[in-house]
Amino acid sequence: MPYINENFIKIPAAYLFSEITRRVSQYASENPGVDIIRMGIGDVTLPLPDVCVDAMIKAADEQREVETFRGYGPEQGYDFLRKAIVENDFASLGIEPDEIFVSDGAKSDTGNIGDIFSGDNKVAITDPSYPVYVDTNAMGGRAGEFVNGCWTDLVYLTCNESSQFIPELPAEKVDIVYLCYPNNPTGTTLTKDQLAAWVNYALENRAIILFDAAYEAFITEKDVPHSIYEIAGAKEVAIEFRSYSKTAGFTGTRCGYTVVPKSVRASSENGGRVSLNKLWLRRQTTKFNGVSYVVQRAAEATYSPEGRKQVDELIRYYMENARVIREALQAIGLSVVGGVNAPYVWAKTPDGMSSWDYFDFLLKKKHIVCTPGVGFGASGEGFVRFSSFGDKDRIAEAVRRMVR
Amino acid sequence: MPYINENFIKIPAAYLFSEITRRVSQYASENPGVDIIRMGIGDVTLPLPDVCVDAMIKAADEQREVETFRGYGPEQGYDFLRKAIVENDFASLGIEPDEIFVSDGAKSDTGNIGDIFSGDNKVAITDPSYPVYVDTNAMGGRAGEFVNGCWTDLVYLTCNESSQFIPELPAEKVDIVYLCYPNNPTGTTLTKDQLAAWVNYALENRAIILFDAAYEAFITEKDVPHSIYEIAGAKEVAIEFRSYSKTAGFTGTRCGYTVVPKSVRASSENGGRVSLNKLWLRRQTTKFNGVSYVVQRAAEATYSPEGRKQVDELIRYYMENARVIREALQAIGLSVVGGVNAPYVWAKTPDGMSSWDYFDFLLKKKHIVCTPGVGFGASGEGFVRFSSFGDKDRIAEAVRRMVR
Repeated sequence: MPYINENFIKIPAAYLFSEITRRVSQYASENPGVDIIRMGIGDVTLPLPDVCVDAMIKAADEQREVETFRGYGPEQGYDFLRKAIVENDFASLGIEPDEIFVSDGAKSDTGNIGDIFSGDNKVAITDPSYPVYVDTNAMGGRAGEFVNGCWTDLVYLTCNESSQFIPELPAEKVDIVYLCYPNNPTGTTLTKDQLAAWVNYALENRAIILFDAAYEAFITEKDVPHSIYEIAGAKEVAIEFRSYSKTAGFTGTRCGYTVVPKSVRASSENGGRVSLNKLWLRRQTTKFNGVSYVVQRAAEATYSPEGRKQVDELIRYYMENARVIREALQAIGLSVVGGVNAPYVWAKTPDGMSSWDYFDFLLKKKHIVCTPGVGFGASGEGFVRFSSFGDKDRIAEAVRRMVR
Repeated sequence: MPYINENFIKIPAAYLFSEITRRVSQYASENPGVDIIRMGIGDVTLPLPDVCVDAMIKAADEQREVETFRGYGPEQGYDFLRKAIVENDFASLGIEPDEIFVSDGAKSDTGNIGDIFSGDNKVAITDPSYPVYVDTNAMGGRAGEFVNGCWTDLVYLTCNESSQFIPELPAEKVDIVYLCYPNNPTGTTLTKDQLAAWVNYALENRAIILFDAAYEAFITEKDVPHSIYEIAGAKEVAIEFRSYSKTAGFTGTRCGYTVVPKSVRASSENGGRVSLNKLWLRRQTTKFNGVSYVVQRAAEATYSPEGRKQVDELIRYYMENARVIREALQAIGLSVVGGVNAPYVWAKTPDGMSSWDYFDFLLKKKHIVCTPGVGFGASGEGFVRFSSFGDKDRIAEAVRRMVR
């Protein structure tokens, strides 16, 4: 009689976006004709850059002819893409092509990376955070029990106003730390010095940092590191996740990659130190068969001169939205962070309202949908997230309503 | 100090295809100008059907315009594809669209399915078999220790001449059984009655069958089931994996799907019976973000009348190759199975030669590359696998050399 992975049924139902959908649907059906503006979900709205579409079409046509047809590709990605990544995203940082693993996206990789670690590791996660870090560690048995809204074995690194949204180094020793900068959901960043403190913690404590840089392309300020490998020593302790999803509108096209430097090691029971690059290679070659050839060609196209231009235009469009949202929220007296180096603006609710109460207020009085901050963790209570991935005219209308 | 998943370093290095490459390269460099015919690797060689390329191009062009752009899709696949699968592949078998989970291929799914099961389950695997079943169970802690070429906790179901390549029901109770029919590597099949015996075993013992039907499209004989759900009761006990890889040449395009009927359940520690459909949905929505939109459109195109015709042509081409290979091997006096309902022909080596010795003989004397059967498990020793996924003229030349 087979037994399930018991950890799965400890995880509470994914509630946030389904509850948002339920409340919006109910309000819309009770108030037909109301024009609702959605600023909740972090999905892009602008189409794919032409260079990417052109590259996909060219690659698809190659698949039509026996001479240019491609069957199984390397599980870790084609050389043409791995080399383009190294040359463009990590120029002068000393990352090698065989340290790049192309995948179908950062969600898969940040989830699957747990495969290579023991279930006994102590894991620290910023609070609030992208729910995938929490849920996949729960599935892997590293979260313990879910009691009063928290997991007993996770170390939560509180990011709130009093910490200026900077996670403090943990008092206790942890083995694995998830950091996402620019941050989802708060839109905040770490300076080089602040990130260096984490790298040094990891070096001193032999911890591993799982660094999610999915929003790296949105950085506009100078002192904000684009890659954790800009910090000395990071190549000994950090794995970095990147994605074309938000950068180039690949949410429906699916491509990202993970950097696992050959010098990052973790311990074996026999006392040996094992290269995580080798383990991840083994994981990917055993449980994955690579990303679609046509999609890898689309990703490669983002690095051409014309591709860079088109990607920059996307980013600028969304960041102009972010500026407009941020300034509007400040104008109505809210305390906000984010929106400068990230497509998310994180706003404190007025008058100590709860996340869901303010969500309801905005829905019913302004016909605007945001994301309740508490959906990203207990420390998100009292905040809401606005996404800048929308149409600029709709966002202008939302701003008029908010300021009115 | 983080610890690795210790199971990873118990797994011996993936040796088979790298050793083949090494021997072939060495022979080629020592014998320049020799014309080597490769019949080893199970990758397709014919290009993608035109309908699939056309569908990808149309879908890529949709991604160019804001009105038709698609961002995040459902993690479990678009309705258009799930409905096409149900109507075409499971017509009259009572499978529902929400029991279909579209993925980037059967390798990912047969590997990742272990996530939803406890590490304590007893797993049975046919021997020889597709190495992914063995390696992913080892990674998940269900294989025990690797001693003398075998895993201590796996139950091996020997498929050899004396069992007529039919796996016998295990004497001990097992929780999870991997069956792949038509089989890789032997090319053999089970009749409905033979498969029904396994379904009945699973019903009686509350076991789960993980049924890999990746080669279903190659079935030519009447009594061979295309889906395990043709067997009464299977919807209570079986998960089925399908792939477009070999059917429609998607090895580089990447799409497959897994069927998890809502009635398949496994036990929880508290004695409850949990729907695996719900667990797999949770796994996929948490650790996966769906297959590229353009690729799902390509998969859908295989079900159009013109798509069916083009896919049938591919299959017929490879199966004619299989017939030619099979008859040639019989003509030179080898005992063979497969090649009738599968693209693989499994041949017993002559004079009791080992798999690798016969591999070397074919390489050096006939300049033909096959796959040593022992690479698929201990019971594959004394056999070699020939793949029919090649060019027919090259296979004709290989046959001339063998018969000479």
